[in-house]
Amino acid sequence: MPEMKEIGIITKTTSSHADEVMGKLVPWLTGRGVKVRMQEDYRGLADGDSIAVPREHVPDGVDMVLVLGGDGTLLSAARLLEGTNQPILGINLGSLGFLTELGLDEIFEALEKVLEGEYTIESRVRLEASLHRAGEQIGHYQVLNDVVINKGALARIIDLETFVDGHKVTNYQADGLIISTPTGSTAYSLAAGGPIIEPTLDVFVISPICPHTLTNRPLVIPGGSRVELCLLSDSGAVFITLDGQEGTRLKQGDCVRVRVSDQKVNLIRTGVRNFYDVLSAKLHWGHR
Amino acid sequence: MPEMKEIGIITKTTSSHADEVMGKLVPWLTGRGVKVRMQEDYRGLADGDSIAVPREHVPDGVDMVLVLGGDGTLLSAARLLEGTNQPILGINLGSLGFLTELGLDEIFEALEKVLEGEYTIESRVRLEASLHRAGEQIGHYQVLNDVVINKGALARIIDLETFVDGHKVTNYQADGLIISTPTGSTAYSLAAGGPIIEPTLDVFVISPICPHTLTNRPLVIPGGSRVELCLLSDSGAVFITLDGQEGTRLKQGDCVRVRVSDQKVNLIRTGVRNFYDVLSAKLHWGHR
Amino acid sequence: MPEMKEIGIITKTTSSHADEVMGKLVPWLTGRGVKVRMQEDYRGLADGDSIAVPREHVPDGVDMVLVLGGDGTLLSAARLLEGTNQPILGINLGSLGFLTELGLDEIFEALEKVLEGEYTIESRVRLEASLHRAGEQIGHYQVLNDVVINKGALARIIDLETFVDGHKVTNYQADGLIISTPTGSTAYSLAAGGPIIEPTLDVFVISPICPHTLTNRPLVIPGGSRVELCLLSDSGAVFITLDGQEGTRLKQGDCVRVRVSDQKVNLIRTGVRNFYDVLSAKLHWGHR
Amino acid sequence: MPEMKEIGIITKTTSSHADEVMGKLVPWLTGRGVKVRMQEDYRGLADGDSIAVPREHVPDGVDMVLVLGGDGTLLSAARLLEGTNQPILGINLGSLGFLTELGLDEIFEALEKVLEGEYTIESRVRLEASLHRAGEQIGHYQVLNDVVINKGALARIIDLETFVDGHKVTNYQADGLIISTPTGSTAYSLAAGGPIIEPTLDVFVISPICPHTLTNRPLVIPGGSRVELCLLSDSGAVFITLDGQEGTRLKQGDCVRVRVSDQKVNLIRTGVRNFYDVLSAKLHWGHR
Repeated sequence: MPEMKEIGIITKTTSSHADEVMGKLVPWLTGRGVKVRMQEDYRGLADGDSIAVPREHVPDGVDMVLVLGGDGTLLSAARLLEGTNQPILGINLGSLGFLTELGLDEIFEALEKVLEGEYTIESRVRLEASLHRAGEQIGHYQVLNDVVINKGALARIIDLETFVDGHKVTNYQADGLIISTPTGSTAYSLAAGGPIIEPTLDVFVISPICPHTLTNRPLVIPGGSRVELCLLSDSGAVFITLDGQEGTRLKQGDCVRVRVSDQKVNLIRTGVRNFYDVLSAKLHWGHR
Repeated sequence: MPEMKEIGIITKTTSSHADEVMGKLVPWLTGRGVKVRMQEDYRGLADGDSIAVPREHVPDGVDMVLVLGGDGTLLSAARLLEGTNQPILGINLGSLGFLTELGLDEIFEALEKVLEGEYTIESRVRLEASLHRAGEQIGHYQVLNDVVINKGALARIIDLETFVDGHKVTNYQADGLIISTPTGSTAYSLAAGGPIIEPTLDVFVISPICPHTLTNRPLVIPGGSRVELCLLSDSGAVFITLDGQEGTRLKQGDCVRVRVSDQKVNLIRTGVRNFYDVLSAKLHWGHR
Repeated sequence: MPEMKEIGIITKTTSSHADEVMGKLVPWLTGRGVKVRMQEDYRGLADGDSIAVPREHVPDGVDMVLVLGGDGTLLSAARLLEGTNQPILGINLGSLGFLTELGLDEIFEALEKVLEGEYTIESRVRLEASLHRAGEQIGHYQVLNDVVINKGALARIIDLETFVDGHKVTNYQADGLIISTPTGSTAYSLAAGGPIIEPTLDVFVISPICPHTLTNRPLVIPGGSRVELCLLSDSGAVFITLDGQEGTRLKQGDCVRVRVSDQKVNLIRTGVRNFYDVLSAKLHWGHR
Repeated sequence: MPEMKEIGIITKTTSSHADEVMGKLVPWLTGRGVKVRMQEDYRGLADGDSIAVPREHVPDGVDMVLVLGGDGTLLSAARLLEGTNQPILGINLGSLGFLTELGLDEIFEALEKVLEGEYTIESRVRLEASLHRAGEQIGHYQVLNDVVINKGALARIIDLETFVDGHKVTNYQADGLIISTPTGSTAYSLAAGGPIIEPTLDVFVISPICPHTLTNRPLVIPGGSRVELCLLSDSGAVFITLDGQEGTRLKQGDCVRVRVSDQKVNLIRTGVRNFYDVLSAKLHWGHR
C-alpha cells in the first residue's frame, strides 16, 4: 500500500462536532509527519504542514481523502475525485452510514492502521449517465449511488421506454425509475423495493418507483450493459437527479443513457466492520 | 327505485368514440321518454327533450348522471355531484375501469335495466380533507380516490408527523403519503404497495410512498378515525393533490386533516359484473 | 364496569419469571379480597382464597382472566374462553407483544386500575372456520389471529379456488393463504406482505403466501363476508392451521369456509399504551 | 460451433403433444443425417439412426440435448447433464417458459439454425450445495434454479444463522430461505419478493420467505461467495429441496453450504427471442 504523506479532509461543516474533531485531528496528523489539506472553514487550524484551500481543491495531489460527515458528504467528495484514483476514508460524525461506516470514536484507531498500511482498497462502481435531446448530448454525469428519473408531485404518471443493450425491456409507467449501483442499493432503491446488492459487484439495478404494472419488479443487470430510457409522455415536470443532488428537467423525447463508468470509487477499508455488520446494524436485523 | 325521468350525461370529449355514442344514445333515451342534459359540446344533438348546458350544470336536477369515459371522467363527475345524492352510472369508452366497469357494448342493456328499475345503489365513501396553516383553515376538499402528499422530484425526503384520533403514529420519512378510500385502493395506493380493499367498506388506508423506514407498512383504519398529518421538514416543494387533479403547495408546519366525509358517492350497479370480476380482469388474475 | 371478585390466571409455565411473579401476585390479589383460580403448577400457592385447578378450568366462573406470558399464551387463553364474554388482561413476561402490551413492571399499576373499574373493553373479532369434505362438515374452529392453509415443504404449489359471498375471486396458486383478523394482521399476515389493520375493525384480510401471480395482493373484506376456499390441486401435503396451533391435512376437493364469528374476544385496556404505541415500538418506527 | 451429428431428446411424456411432435421430429432429424437418442417411451419410432434408451442414457455421447416440455423438464435434463458441457435446446410443449422459450411452431426453424451452426451458447451458473451434520458431509447437490430451505406447514418459524464468506449476516427467522441462481430468479424467488436477475450474471441471491423481520430483504451476492446456513431451531419438519425436486429433512444443527458450481448449464440460443422478450411476455408487461 502506498504511503500516506498528504491527506485531504472534506468536512460536513454544518455538523456541530466537526470543529472539535478537526481541532484534535489536524495536529494529530501533522504530529505524525502527515501534511493536511482542509477546507477554508478551518483556516484557523492552518500552520506549515496543514493548509486551508477551497473545498474543490482539497483533493489536489493528496494520497487520500478523509471524509468527516455522513453518506451525503462522502457522495459529494466522490464527485470531487472524478478522474482520480484517490482513496477515500469515511468517518461518520453522527450515526453510522453505509459509506461512512466508522464512528468518531474509531477515527484514530482507523488512521493508525491506514498510516501503517494496514488497510485494503474496496473499489465501487460508479454509473455514467448522459442526457440526449434531439440527437445532441446535453448533459453528462457520474454517480456513486443512483440516477433517478422522477415525476414532479403534480405531474401525471410517466412513460419511460426502456432498452438494455438495444433490446426493448418495457415501457415503464410509474412515478419514476431508479438506476442504482450496488452502493446505492441500500439507499433510495431499497425504499422503492429494490434488493440489497453486495457493494463490490459489477452490476446495477433498475428499480421502478410505484409502477402501474405490478409485475414490474427490480431488474439486476450486468455492469457491461447499456441502458437507455426515453421519456414518451408529456406529463408535466419530469426530472433527472444524480446522487440526489443535481436536477435537470426532461422534455418529451429526451433519452438518458446509463452505463457503468470506467472510473471507480476507491474506499479504504480497515477491517473494523464489514458490509454485513453495517447492514445488520442499519436495518435492525438484531431485533424484529 | 326512483324513476329516471331526466338523465345528465358527462362525457370525456377527447375520446374518439364519444361523438358516435352520443349520436345513438341521446335519441335512444329521448325515444323512451327520458329527458337528457348534456355538455355544450353536443349542442348539435339538442332538441326539445335534450338540452346542452355548461358541463357543471349537467347534473342540475337530474335523476342520475351517466358518465361516458374512463375512471378519471367519473372522478371529475363525482366532484360535480358534491352535496347531492344523485347516482352515477359509469360506461367506459376504452378498456374497463374499476369505476366504469361497463363497456360500450353493454350500454343499452345496462340502461334498459336502469330504466326498468333493475339496479342497486352501491355507496362509496369519500374523504374530506382540510389544510391548516398557522391556525387557519386554508383549503377544504372532497375526494373519491385519494389525498396524496408528495414531494417534488427535486425535493428531499419529507417528514410527516402523523396522528390518528390524536394518537401519534409515527413520523413518516418518505417520498409521500397516500390516504386512500377503498375505491382508491386499486389506484395509486396499490402501486405504492397498499392492499386491495372491498369498495363498500367504511375504512381508509394510509400508504407510505417509498418510506425510508422499511417497516412502515400500509395501515387500514376505521372510517370514524381522524387523521392529521403535519409537515415537519422544509425540504423544498411538497404538494397535496386530490384525486390526482388539484395541487396546493404545502409549507413547513402545515397540517392536513383527513376523515371520511358524510357524503357518499352513489354508484348504480346493474349486476353485469361485480367487484371481483373487474379486479380479476384488471389485474390479470386469469394468467400468471 | 363489573367488579372483579374472582380472577383466573393463565400462565406460560415455561417462563423463568412466572414463578416469581405468581409468588407476589397471588397474595397481592387475595390481600385485596379477590379470589384467584390458577393452574395446578402453582398448587403450592393455594390457600382459602386462591385455588389451583386444571388449566382448562381456570376460567370457570371468573370475572376476568389474567394472562401471564406472550401473545401465544393469550391466543391459547382465548381458545379456553370460547362461548364466554370473559375479559382478558395480558401481561407480557418478556418483551412487549401486540396482545400482551403491558410489561411485568406495569402489572400492579394495571391491576389497581382494573380493580377500581378504570378500564375499557376492546372487542376483537374472531374468525370461525369450518372444513368440508365430500359434502360433510368435518371440522369447526375459532381463531383470534388467523386461519392458514399452507403447503408442506415438499409439496408443489397449491391451487385454491376462492369465493367471497359466492363470487369467484380467483384460483390462488401459491404456497398458501392466510385469512387473518385485524388482530392477526400484525402476525403472520404482515410477514406475507399484508397490511396493518386497526384491531377493532370488523373486517378480515386474505393474504396470499408467495403467490405465483405477482398481482395477487392482500384483499381486505367486510366482516359480513363469507369466504370459501377449495383445494383444487393434489399436490401432496396441504394443511390448515388455526392460530398456528392445530393442523389438519386437507385433501383435494376439501373446502374451508371462513366468516367472522359471533363471539368476540374482550381485551381489558387500561390506557397505559395504545395500539399505535405498541405498533411503533414493535416495528422500530422510532429509528430507521 | 461444433457440428450436431447426434442429438438426444428428453421429453415430458405426460404431455399430450409429445407423441405427435416426436412422430414428426425424429424422421425430420434422421432425414438430415442426424442420429437421435430418445427415451424408451418412443421405442416405436426407433430405426437404424434413432435409438430408444433409458432416460438417463439419452445424453450419452450426444452433441446436444433437445428438451421437449416445460421448464421443469429442462431442469431435470440439466441434472442428467451434470459433469458434461453438452448444450441444451428447450422447446416448450405448452405456453412459453423462461428456460424453454421456443414454442412448438418454432421447432423446425430453430433446429435448421442449430444444424447450420447459427446459434450461440449462453452459459448459466448452477449452484452447488452440500449438507453437513455433526461435522460430516451427508449430501451434495447441483441446481440450476434454487436451493430452498423451508419449514413444513405445521412447523414453527425457523431460525437460520447465515454467513457469507465467514461473516455473520443475520439469523433469519422466517418460513424459509431461497438461494437462487439468476436463472431461478424468475421462479420461486420472484414469488418471495426477490429481484429479476439477468440470467448470465455470475451472482446469486438469498431471498427470505415471509421473514419475521420486515427489513430482511433479498440480498444479491457475488458468484465467488460461500454461503453457510445453519438451522438453529428445533421446530419440527424443516427440509432442503433442490430445484423443487428432491427433499431431505434437516435436523437442528445441520448446516447447508452453497456456492456457485464450476459446472455451467449451456443453453443454445437461436436469437428468436431474448431474455427481455420472454420476461415481458411472461410477466404481462405489455398491459397492466
